[in-house]
Amino acid sequence: MRFTTEKRLEDDVVEREFVLDDIPGVLWTSGSQPAPLVLLGHPGGLRAMYPRLLPRAKDCVAHGFAAATIELPGGGDRPRSAAAEEARADLRRAIGAGEPVDEIVDRLVLPLVDKAVPEWQAALDALLAVPGISGPVGFSGGVLAVAIRLAAVEPRIAAALLFAGSYVPRSMFEEARRVTIPLHVLLQWDDEGNDRQLALDVFDAFGSKEKTLHANMGGHTGVPAFEADYANRFFVRHLR
Amino acid sequence: MRFTTEKRLEDDVVEREFVLDDIPGVLWTSGSQPAPLVLLGHPGGLRAMYPRLLPRAKDCVAHGFAAATIELPGGGDRPRSAAAEEARADLRRAIGAGEPVDEIVDRLVLPLVDKAVPEWQAALDALLAVPGISGPVGFSGGVLAVAIRLAAVEPRIAAALLFAGSYVPRSMFEEARRVTIPLHVLLQWDDEGNDRQLALDVFDAFGSKEKTLHANMGGHTGVPAFEADYANRFFVRHLR
Repeated sequence: MRFTTEKRLEDDVVEREFVLDDIPGVLWTSGSQPAPLVLLGHPGGLRAMYPRLLPRAKDCVAHGFAAATIELPGGGDRPRSAAAEEARADLRRAIGAGEPVDEIVDRLVLPLVDKAVPEWQAALDALLAVPGISGPVGFSGGVLAVAIRLAAVEPRIAAALLFAGSYVPRSMFEEARRVTIPLHVLLQWDDEGNDRQLALDVFDAFGSKEKTLHANMGGHTGVPAFEADYANRFFVRHLR
Repeated sequence: MRFTTEKRLEDDVVEREFVLDDIPGVLWTSGSQPAPLVLLGHPGGLRAMYPRLLPRAKDCVAHGFAAATIELPGGGDRPRSAAAEEARADLRRAIGAGEPVDEIVDRLVLPLVDKAVPEWQAALDALLAVPGISGPVGFSGGVLAVAIRLAAVEPRIAAALLFAGSYVPRSMFEEARRVTIPLHVLLQWDDEGNDRQLALDVFDAFGSKEKTLHANMGGHTGVPAFEADYANRFFVRHLR
């Protein structure tokens, strides 16, 4: 991991951009006390997502955590996958025509999960070696299927806040059952791009003893502001 | 309303028992500043419920509210209704035999709602006349169908925390659609005495723009301790 920029933002938050092999990422920290790390998930496209990632990162830092994220495979300036682009176009077409999407979701999401999860694990290796960053680690948001695989296979992830806002291949329900860490799951009740029943089924499938579903009204980007406060409290309970 | 006892508990909480006509009730207050009121619902049987009501009441007072409750029709020492007792026995039998319960739920719950709601409204009249108690008013927990009717017809109720833990007659879904105040709905995912899909349908039916569902693992009495904190924050947001 190589840091490429360092900026001091307001409230003493230090923002450092880095590259890990050819994957760009951002790390937000404050002070020198060892801080638990929260990995911030997103749908891909770090630069475009930055205005929504920054307040989440600042919120983490304000609660005594470090926060970090990396670009997804195919996101931002990273090389596109022709198969993923084709699957994305097929998905749009199928949704528009009201056709079944299961097979397309498999083609779109499973290769992304296979590629992204080892990258997040490599980022974790590198980030936990940075002075001032310690475990335990939380994962927050992003592509639900990536979060499920990561929570199932990565023992350093101690708690996860999941956003039921993207497709989960049916074959991954078995992996959801193997997730046993505390979960805090956000569901937008009227999410136009999301199947409510599928989201409830995924929530039901998780093996965790402590899992909480917070369902709110509104569409994909309409998560109420007060949920940020609940999210912080969830991570404070499990990472401090 | 006539106060019958007055006790000073720890943390400066004053507990006063009262009777309103022949209905027993309890009021918890602290200090002399006008405090918004939270009505504490319960399944009936004030004396038996007291150990679970007291921490809820103390929590309200600690957050700057007054808290109060009254006995339900047929609860505690209040006269039983033969029809309700019969419906209750029928319900147990039908559940045991795996038979449909809709008609029995109507017989059990609708008369309770018809009788209880005007009593809570009368209690509200009396409580809001007590020095140091002011609006707005919150309603918390108790029999879901009673809370739905009260929230639909009583404009002084400004926010409600509902517990999806009891039967709602199908005919009351129309009333749920007329509820427009902010709602915070608790659902126990594995509640043995509760139909999960019915609970999700009721949540879906509410007309409120701000409604949040918090679903947690475990049975009827297994609501996690951290939900008390979320509940307080909900009422602080809407009653202060």
